[in-house]
Amino acid sequence: MTDDAGAGPSRGEARGEAGGKARGGRVGEDLAHLGEFGLIARLTQGLPAGDGVFVGVGDDGAVLDVTPGRRLVVTTDLLVEGRHFDAATADPPDWGWKSVAVNVSDLAAMGATPRWLLLGLTVPAGYPVAVLDGLYAGIAEACERLHVGVVGGDVSSGPALSVAVTALGEVDRAVPRGGARPGDRLVLTGQLGAAAAALELLRRAGAGDAAATDLLARYPGMAAALRRPWPDVAGGMRLARLGATAMIDVSDGLAGDALHLAEESGIGVEVHDTALPLAPGVAEAARLLGRDPAELALAGGEDYVLAAAVPRAVEVGGVIDVGAFVPDPARRVRVTRGATSPLAGLSWDHFRPTSPPA
Amino acid sequence: MTDDAGAGPSRGEARGEAGGKARGGRVGEDLAHLGEFGLIARLTQGLPAGDGVFVGVGDDGAVLDVTPGRRLVVTTDLLVEGRHFDAATADPPDWGWKSVAVNVSDLAAMGATPRWLLLGLTVPAGYPVAVLDGLYAGIAEACERLHVGVVGGDVSSGPALSVAVTALGEVDRAVPRGGARPGDRLVLTGQLGAAAAALELLRRAGAGDAAATDLLARYPGMAAALRRPWPDVAGGMRLARLGATAMIDVSDGLAGDALHLAEESGIGVEVHDTALPLAPGVAEAARLLGRDPAELALAGGEDYVLAAAVPRAVEVGGVIDVGAFVPDPARRVRVTRGATSPLAGLSWDHFRPTSPPA
Repeated sequence: MTDDAGAGPSRGEARGEAGGKARGGRVGEDLAHLGEFGLIARLTQGLPAGDGVFVGVGDDGAVLDVTPGRRLVVTTDLLVEGRHFDAATADPPDWGWKSVAVNVSDLAAMGATPRWLLLGLTVPAGYPVAVLDGLYAGIAEACERLHVGVVGGDVSSGPALSVAVTALGEVDRAVPRGGARPGDRLVLTGQLGAAAAALELLRRAGAGDAAATDLLARYPGMAAALRRPWPDVAGGMRLARLGATAMIDVSDGLAGDALHLAEESGIGVEVHDTALPLAPGVAEAARLLGRDPAELALAGGEDYVLAAAVPRAVEVGGVIDVGAFVPDPARRVRVTRGATSPLAGLSWDHFRPTSPPA
Repeated sequence: MTDDAGAGPSRGEARGEAGGKARGGRVGEDLAHLGEFGLIARLTQGLPAGDGVFVGVGDDGAVLDVTPGRRLVVTTDLLVEGRHFDAATADPPDWGWKSVAVNVSDLAAMGATPRWLLLGLTVPAGYPVAVLDGLYAGIAEACERLHVGVVGGDVSSGPALSVAVTALGEVDRAVPRGGARPGDRLVLTGQLGAAAAALELLRRAGAGDAAATDLLARYPGMAAALRRPWPDVAGGMRLARLGATAMIDVSDGLAGDALHLAEESGIGVEVHDTALPLAPGVAEAARLLGRDPAELALAGGEDYVLAAAVPRAVEVGGVIDVGAFVPDPARRVRVTRGATSPLAGLSWDHFRPTSPPA
């Protein structure tokens, strides 16, 4: 992918490319010609600045006005090429969109109003500038649509393209992960499985599987869910206002994220397989892939809907009941037609990856 | 450096190591055994939590109380193994210290009080956990000494070890880069050249140069400046209070950073070679290395002292005068015994690295 994939030379060391030309047959402007500050100027010019910004991009730090009486909410997420996005399943503008969206989704899961972003970009030497332009076009589009301003960042060379995003927001009443109580309903603000199904279908389609290509064409929402996840900011603010006791965004898969809620709350949780809301096309995709549709919904991840604990006494419409919290911390289970099995072991782990069932 | 230095497989793809064992003969606990959440728990346990934290590490976002009436200051910096730190010149606890210190230095350059940090860690599969333990010991030590709490973060696999730090602070009166006026003094809060000299001496010492080893032993402050930079938080707050019009921390080298002040202020600047305060040992190191000591001081970088513009009418002791701001934006020069030469081209650029003069 790059001229420079190994452990690189240290700061100040000769690089064997002091002439300033990237090697290889890449077109357009190259990084060595732009330089670090030229690159930063080029990439940041199209980004929205946001409100409440006293000092923005280009200084040692951004200076921001948090609304008096509100609390600050801050979160950070890393996205690495080849791990969180790749050219086989999405285009660079999608990578940029996703980098913003997954961070804003974390703010949504606290019940917060998103306000500002910082971007840390690592770029291999000789990386095509056109790809970076695409990445930043997607970042700018997501910032515009999600009403956040970019107030700072950093750029470094490194062996893989990665984006480290920090998102800042504000909240009146934050909803943590650990506030669920026995008897609370487990609810979702949207459907599951589309991104996970799309990822596998796109791989098959790329390998020439016509049935996968056809399914993706008939359900364009599946690939869109993977490429352009929409963080449910309004849903998070609404659930916070209505009195949700715990909340999380479903990024690792509902199984893992329901476990997080139960663990942080010190109680148990039951997730009902038959109640899981599958996004359009997911049941059909599961048949084609030979997968259990409930497992795609529970373990697939990247859904970016919100999962919340809501007291039974609270009237909340527009959400989907998928289970309940229970007193026994040892009971953290999926329930399939009366039979139970543990939720643990179904979600994604960066350092314990396993192959999906065939 | 790693089993996994190339572009890695995407999320959900088989890794060929599903047995959960890292390859190679590394000792101690391995990453695959710990898993993502085990690693996070292990690394975060020794970190200080900080004050004003309503929700801290372990939720979707941290919820923080900014002091009423103060503005928020936020900055981010990436550090990549092989670029910003390496095993040849520093140990893992030094890498951790530096990751925190360079970010806190950016807050200091705004005149801010540092308060909180977020850490984004990228780790190659199979990376030795003992190195990560060392890294985090240095992070914890720096956080304790610099009075900041760690409130969040993220961990991902990726082809090189890197740390993306976001630092948050508060300020009453922020000092930007762009407020300098013609006639203002250019002052420094400390001495220059130690880190740059140490970097080259350590490389020579590593290659068996006894004179370099001897010089490093006689001036231990040089290697300490490289490994354990001390951000001048108190100096930044003092200069802000006394009325500095512009400020920056000297990370890219004084030449580049004085240029930033002049550019952002839309004026010129003169830096006086003969006035440059060299740290102990730097003049002797320059002789050994065959370098111009003023160039080590101007272009070396990583000094992490503060450079500020101060009006002549303001009484400020304890700083070192190294130049002055002038009206002509075309005059951004170093002055050497009456002769001038451009400041441009002397500082570090991630995408245009050149070898140092021999």
